[in-house]
Amino acid sequence: MAGFFVTFEGIDKSGKTTQAALLAEKLRKKGRDVVFTQEPGGTELGREIRHLVLGWRPRAAVVALAEMLLFAADRAQHVAEVIRPALEAGKVVISNRFVDSTTAYQGYGRGMDLGQLRAIQEVASDGLRPDLTVLIDIDVATSRERGGASDRLEAENDLFFERIREGYLALGRTDPNRIFRVEGHLSVEVVSQHIYAEVSNRLGLDNRL
Amino acid sequence: MAGFFVTFEGIDKSGKTTQAALLAEKLRKKGRDVVFTQEPGGTELGREIRHLVLGWRPRAAVVALAEMLLFAADRAQHVAEVIRPALEAGKVVISNRFVDSTTAYQGYGRGMDLGQLRAIQEVASDGLRPDLTVLIDIDVATSRERGGASDRLEAENDLFFERIREGYLALGRTDPNRIFRVEGHLSVEVVSQHIYAEVSNRLGLDNRL
Repeated sequence: MAGFFVTFEGIDKSGKTTQAALLAEKLRKKGRDVVFTQEPGGTELGREIRHLVLGWRPRAAVVALAEMLLFAADRAQHVAEVIRPALEAGKVVISNRFVDSTTAYQGYGRGMDLGQLRAIQEVASDGLRPDLTVLIDIDVATSRERGGASDRLEAENDLFFERIREGYLALGRTDPNRIFRVEGHLSVEVVSQHIYAEVSNRLGLDNRL
Repeated sequence: MAGFFVTFEGIDKSGKTTQAALLAEKLRKKGRDVVFTQEPGGTELGREIRHLVLGWRPRAAVVALAEMLLFAADRAQHVAEVIRPALEAGKVVISNRFVDSTTAYQGYGRGMDLGQLRAIQEVASDGLRPDLTVLIDIDVATSRERGGASDRLEAENDLFFERIREGYLALGRTDPNRIFRVEGHLSVEVVSQHIYAEVSNRLGLDNRL
């Protein structure tokens, strides 16, 4: 059985973690071996990096370029240590965030050069691309209402998140075969049904389920 | 007064730290304002990164690609927080290691793709190049004799260090105007005199001293 790599993307509080967990549960019920992981922090090294970027309070702010390269290091370790071995063993890998998060947050959000970002992500991900990316789209007001923002990135202002949301939507238009946009304002159950329909269809077409 | 950026390079135990400190002392006596710094670990973030790469013992090894990207993040922060502001203030910045270390250790030493490395370093260093690089050349046997290898990189085998030394020499041949090779087997005093002669000459030609 061939591996299948699904990533979940979207702005904060879009429901990525909940939906990724529900998908994992449904696929496991169908007998698939599922690895559920995340970025940043999908490895022991990654958890250290995540702390540096999101939880740590140095005297001097971490510059955008260093932040992006730290996320890239997390990704390189994640691909080599977790994702590729699982895919090669025929598992379904579900990652909460992957390359598109960098494009959306650091590229569209922080205004970093998209060409440079793409080149570095290509290296960091060792050329690995998701078979499917689920983009859960909610508006920024809803993200705020759902509350709970506490880490450094989540404390940014609304315009920053508007740019990120637009970035995700732009990515979706550029790569519609890979990126499946789902309306995130619907109920948890309905969103989960939409996602499972798409994933099972893709796996079914490939005779992988 | 214009800033001047000097980097020190060479394999472990070549005497970089000693010589960089001696140069700083001599330039300070001439009235120059000198910032003496290092990679990895020239910033608070960098010291955390340095620990992750060199002192930390995770269950799974840090892969070469992640290591390189961590060093790149350290460099990005170092350039933005320390080096550029000092150069813009007209200071002499002396850094113990910079981009050439990545080319030598990760490129020649670990065999990573030199073109990819160059592209990422160009981003990480924000296009900043040293005005002068002092390459202190010693052979690997001497490095071993001088002993004290304790961190993770320094525990690698002799062939690894031979490749690194060859990498440095290759860089020196490619960029002879920037890279000044000095014979590191000579006494500390003689090596220091050679280095100071070169630096004062460069600064003098530019009427910077």
